[in-house]
Amino acid sequence: MLERQRAKGTIVITASIVGATGYTGAVLTDILAEHPEVQLGALTTKSYVGKSVSSVFPHLRVDRKYQEFSPDSAGAADVAFVCYPHAEAYAVVAQLVDKGCRVVDLSADYRLKDPAGYEKWYGFAHPRADLVEEAVFGLPEVYRAQIATARIIANPGCYPTSMILGLLPAVDDIGDGGVIVDSKSGVSGAGRTPNDKVHFCAVHDNFKAYGEVGHRHTAEMMQELAAASGRALPVSFTPHLLPVDRGILSTMYFKPKCGMIGNAAWTQKYRDYYKDATFVEVVESVPSLAEVQNTNFCRIAVKEDSAAGLVKVFSVIDNLVKGASGQAVQNMNVMFGFAEDAGLRRKV
Amino acid sequence: MLERQRAKGTIVITASIVGATGYTGAVLTDILAEHPEVQLGALTTKSYVGKSVSSVFPHLRVDRKYQEFSPDSAGAADVAFVCYPHAEAYAVVAQLVDKGCRVVDLSADYRLKDPAGYEKWYGFAHPRADLVEEAVFGLPEVYRAQIATARIIANPGCYPTSMILGLLPAVDDIGDGGVIVDSKSGVSGAGRTPNDKVHFCAVHDNFKAYGEVGHRHTAEMMQELAAASGRALPVSFTPHLLPVDRGILSTMYFKPKCGMIGNAAWTQKYRDYYKDATFVEVVESVPSLAEVQNTNFCRIAVKEDSAAGLVKVFSVIDNLVKGASGQAVQNMNVMFGFAEDAGLRRKV
Amino acid sequence: MLERQRAKGTIVITASIVGATGYTGAVLTDILAEHPEVQLGALTTKSYVGKSVSSVFPHLRVDRKYQEFSPDSAGAADVAFVCYPHAEAYAVVAQLVDKGCRVVDLSADYRLKDPAGYEKWYGFAHPRADLVEEAVFGLPEVYRAQIATARIIANPGCYPTSMILGLLPAVDDIGDGGVIVDSKSGVSGAGRTPNDKVHFCAVHDNFKAYGEVGHRHTAEMMQELAAASGRALPVSFTPHLLPVDRGILSTMYFKPKCGMIGNAAWTQKYRDYYKDATFVEVVESVPSLAEVQNTNFCRIAVKEDSAAGLVKVFSVIDNLVKGASGQAVQNMNVMFGFAEDAGLRRKV
Amino acid sequence: MLERQRAKGTIVITASIVGATGYTGAVLTDILAEHPEVQLGALTTKSYVGKSVSSVFPHLRVDRKYQEFSPDSAGAADVAFVCYPHAEAYAVVAQLVDKGCRVVDLSADYRLKDPAGYEKWYGFAHPRADLVEEAVFGLPEVYRAQIATARIIANPGCYPTSMILGLLPAVDDIGDGGVIVDSKSGVSGAGRTPNDKVHFCAVHDNFKAYGEVGHRHTAEMMQELAAASGRALPVSFTPHLLPVDRGILSTMYFKPKCGMIGNAAWTQKYRDYYKDATFVEVVESVPSLAEVQNTNFCRIAVKEDSAAGLVKVFSVIDNLVKGASGQAVQNMNVMFGFAEDAGLRRKV
Repeated sequence: MLERQRAKGTIVITASIVGATGYTGAVLTDILAEHPEVQLGALTTKSYVGKSVSSVFPHLRVDRKYQEFSPDSAGAADVAFVCYPHAEAYAVVAQLVDKGCRVVDLSADYRLKDPAGYEKWYGFAHPRADLVEEAVFGLPEVYRAQIATARIIANPGCYPTSMILGLLPAVDDIGDGGVIVDSKSGVSGAGRTPNDKVHFCAVHDNFKAYGEVGHRHTAEMMQELAAASGRALPVSFTPHLLPVDRGILSTMYFKPKCGMIGNAAWTQKYRDYYKDATFVEVVESVPSLAEVQNTNFCRIAVKEDSAAGLVKVFSVIDNLVKGASGQAVQNMNVMFGFAEDAGLRRKV
Repeated sequence: MLERQRAKGTIVITASIVGATGYTGAVLTDILAEHPEVQLGALTTKSYVGKSVSSVFPHLRVDRKYQEFSPDSAGAADVAFVCYPHAEAYAVVAQLVDKGCRVVDLSADYRLKDPAGYEKWYGFAHPRADLVEEAVFGLPEVYRAQIATARIIANPGCYPTSMILGLLPAVDDIGDGGVIVDSKSGVSGAGRTPNDKVHFCAVHDNFKAYGEVGHRHTAEMMQELAAASGRALPVSFTPHLLPVDRGILSTMYFKPKCGMIGNAAWTQKYRDYYKDATFVEVVESVPSLAEVQNTNFCRIAVKEDSAAGLVKVFSVIDNLVKGASGQAVQNMNVMFGFAEDAGLRRKV
Repeated sequence: MLERQRAKGTIVITASIVGATGYTGAVLTDILAEHPEVQLGALTTKSYVGKSVSSVFPHLRVDRKYQEFSPDSAGAADVAFVCYPHAEAYAVVAQLVDKGCRVVDLSADYRLKDPAGYEKWYGFAHPRADLVEEAVFGLPEVYRAQIATARIIANPGCYPTSMILGLLPAVDDIGDGGVIVDSKSGVSGAGRTPNDKVHFCAVHDNFKAYGEVGHRHTAEMMQELAAASGRALPVSFTPHLLPVDRGILSTMYFKPKCGMIGNAAWTQKYRDYYKDATFVEVVESVPSLAEVQNTNFCRIAVKEDSAAGLVKVFSVIDNLVKGASGQAVQNMNVMFGFAEDAGLRRKV
Repeated sequence: MLERQRAKGTIVITASIVGATGYTGAVLTDILAEHPEVQLGALTTKSYVGKSVSSVFPHLRVDRKYQEFSPDSAGAADVAFVCYPHAEAYAVVAQLVDKGCRVVDLSADYRLKDPAGYEKWYGFAHPRADLVEEAVFGLPEVYRAQIATARIIANPGCYPTSMILGLLPAVDDIGDGGVIVDSKSGVSGAGRTPNDKVHFCAVHDNFKAYGEVGHRHTAEMMQELAAASGRALPVSFTPHLLPVDRGILSTMYFKPKCGMIGNAAWTQKYRDYYKDATFVEVVESVPSLAEVQNTNFCRIAVKEDSAAGLVKVFSVIDNLVKGASGQAVQNMNVMFGFAEDAGLRRKV
């Protein structure tokens, strides 16, 4: 087992993971096992109770066993990460909060500020409008102050993270036509449960769009663009499935109200915006997935297409790290006053 | 060796391939070796003179040897396929035409109708404006009549084929803002010459954009959209490199002048347009690369994003077949009065 | 739809496929839809009754619908291909034979000549020793004469096909220590049913052995080596899972009784043995999967390691074609007196 | 840039990398930039002088520039890592040693103890028999004591590392027939220089053997087996090229003199042997590449095939880490008295 060196006297919190045997749970386990300020609490599972971490994920050198979920055991931690599917997570989150535990929810169940959105986009009536209102959208680059004191963090979706970070610095420049978001994701974004669509032979050497109109992540994207711009900007989002394991590239297009200002000016605008953001890198060459895979970084390049009068933004993240578990730990670091990059400098 | 059955009395033409040892040359060799109306003439090469086809391409069961190019040997055929890079092809094409040979040029050297375009997009002054004017853009779905009698066919680029076929039926509906073309291609589109960018370790499990503004294929796309619509429509084109061998998916976006008419109406409009096109299939589910790989088919789906007020078109082809060598043979079939699909029903 | 040209007056048989919606069923559908002597009969399925072929397999341009299995409908054909898992196939085969239909069984249920082998290797008692005795092992390169008149063909496993073809010409030279068979297979060999092991993220960029001792296919290999050599030769077989879709490479090692005779002599011996075998190619350079993917060919190279006193044999096939559905059609061709390569020259 | 936390008062050495812009150089740069006891000295290159690390390797967040090689600059470090091809490295190593610098040579130029071996296996006469004699084979699991005081470390080849670690504990049990080593490697093992064989389209979805008899790494394997066993054991080695980026699986076969003793006994024997080896893990389930990719671990499983009377050993490493740069740093750690795993716990 990889052993963590911890200096004497460090303050340590306990973190539990609810639904620890999916892909996001596995990455969380990896990060938290080496996090200098954290000790692992309960790792809960539905399917692998009693099994060791390394028997389920042989690449993880973590000497722990999975257990069944109970609000008591998971809620005994200082913070719980909830990795359940949407419509299954909200009740567990509520239970854990009731136990006095702070929660980072990796599902969509607290992301939308408008309670009616859950019915429209996710097909269920959310019974806890109070907690929806209280929850903070967990994008530290925007909501750092609120995250610091929040009880419930709604960890953003992977696509929205790549998109929102890629557009925020330009949000006031986006023309009223809104944005086109053409995103391409690795297969781990579809989760660990086997089905026809993630069969190796269906994905390998292949490529296609899916959820090609009205994908649920559109709601989050529109909400956050509106929050940042004060306007209701149309978002046309199209996800595609790449034959790669991890990583999202969102290629985005908008007509700038400011007209063409030159690539250097865009780059500078973005760098100014992110000057205090540890994990956002604004670069000059269009970034590839390999530059961020297994890291918590988001890398962004902006290019004008002056002939067509458009701006193109290229934004890459690792969907399981900055798009899920890494960002969740970044949120935890902000919540507990740790260095924002604590535990997030190594590849996972 | 796979042997071709030929009925007695069939009229047979001879076809030579100039630059036969690149990827497009290999696919042409494969198609023509089994084509019922064709016998192979000279297969020319710069690097493999005297070698057998199967020693260079062990997957090809064609019993022939490569030879050096000469206008006499290659030009002795009824038709020559020229697979040279741009700026190298035009002179060879002219030589072959002078020998009385009809030519399908797979390079870009005769695609642009405006001679000034070569300077602007390809960096060379084209010395044969006469042949540029004479050459026919080899998209049989549009120019079938002119192809039938042409001496020089400018075989379209791979990206433009996917894009133009995907937009032609809607060209009068495209708003003045023009179109966004977000294309993703397999690696074979970059050619067979090794370099850093096609090293397995650079591409595998990775994804990125390249030539992200002002890619040369934009010129062809704009030319053909303008020819079809009578308007100068802006085209913002962004190619990306997929970790797959073969195939292009172009995801395209435009704001329709006609407003939202429903997916069924779009599908019907496209099907009407292509009712006589052997190799274009308009489908209801978004197509994947696997549906057209190794074939000469182009498969297209159209979807409205009514919330954003946009139409999305998904168009897939195999870049080496409908995007290059298959389309070249389709052009030859039209030129010589063969069935348009002769030799093009088997996978290559 | 790809249309098959059929000359007037051709004798046509009808072929049904039982279990047509797995990978081997799909490849059979593809081959038989274009086979010049065959018309498709019932295509049966458990999960897709009433669906069209192209809705389940969008890459197949075959205009047919799936139906439920019944002995009457499937058995009304001249020949039925049974694509059920082992222990499920034998009863259906018996039903079809009773209907007067000849059967090519792609499962393992009639491959072992010793009825006790089913208990030992597959864990079920075979109730039809009579049919086991009657069935012919469907390797046309060995059993062509018996196949011609057989009612039941036990189509060989994919690994055994690659191994047996690779060793037969040398079987009398293999030392009493027997052979080591280190095989590597594409994922389609594991079938179309989703599970953890064929999830894209489990296979992609990864590699491992499985069934590393005592894999069931060992039984077939030993049976056929013993039949050919008259000796019980030990076989140590180790399969591995490649991150590729289709193809098997078996690398095999044996100590030759004849000592070192030179690569040329081995190649000649193999070529002599296979001089009448349409689908076996003996080559000088070690073959790659790409040379046989999508074809019915087996390609073999033999190399002496004189320093170690061993012979290495490299044998490649496409597991779904020569390793399953192509070989099944080759067997059908022999059974009905068609050209052995009828329908098997195009890629599938 | 990832920043390294260093406690005050730490002893720090300087390390230079000669040939820093190949794959092994990049991994060394990554490891050493974060190593707690090391500061980076000169990073030399032939092709990228003056360029920054991140412009050549955008995934590396190391703020340094490459420079031309000179014995003075590279030799000013406490230790130099030489990443040149064989026959190019030995002279540079000698120059650096003359400057008083200790050297870890990642080439083959000092691996063979018999000077005549260089002529036989590598085709050049080695002019420095004195340094060949002095050099220590850099496998810390075997030669830790000699490494501690060595001036020149001959870092082992990737295939030999996987093979030797997999056989050492059993070396006295291997029958006189010797061992068969069937190895499969990712493409990064072929280096970063582009050529036909590492073109994405040549490797992707493909698989084949290469160097199928008499591969140079056989010499190292035989040397070390002989050194450990006191016998000249035949080794039949066959490398294959996997469509993966990184990782080697060696599947090995031998007939044990001790007969069948059971899997548990083999596992225990191996665990006893490696009880003090930080980076060797003996496991019960056959390991996959994913379990060691990006790490310095070697993972091994041993399985008896009692029916065939053989033992199978499965050994996996990352060819660029334990098979090259990670092991090189492990050697450096031993040379300078650092913790053997210093800098080697994070993924690279």
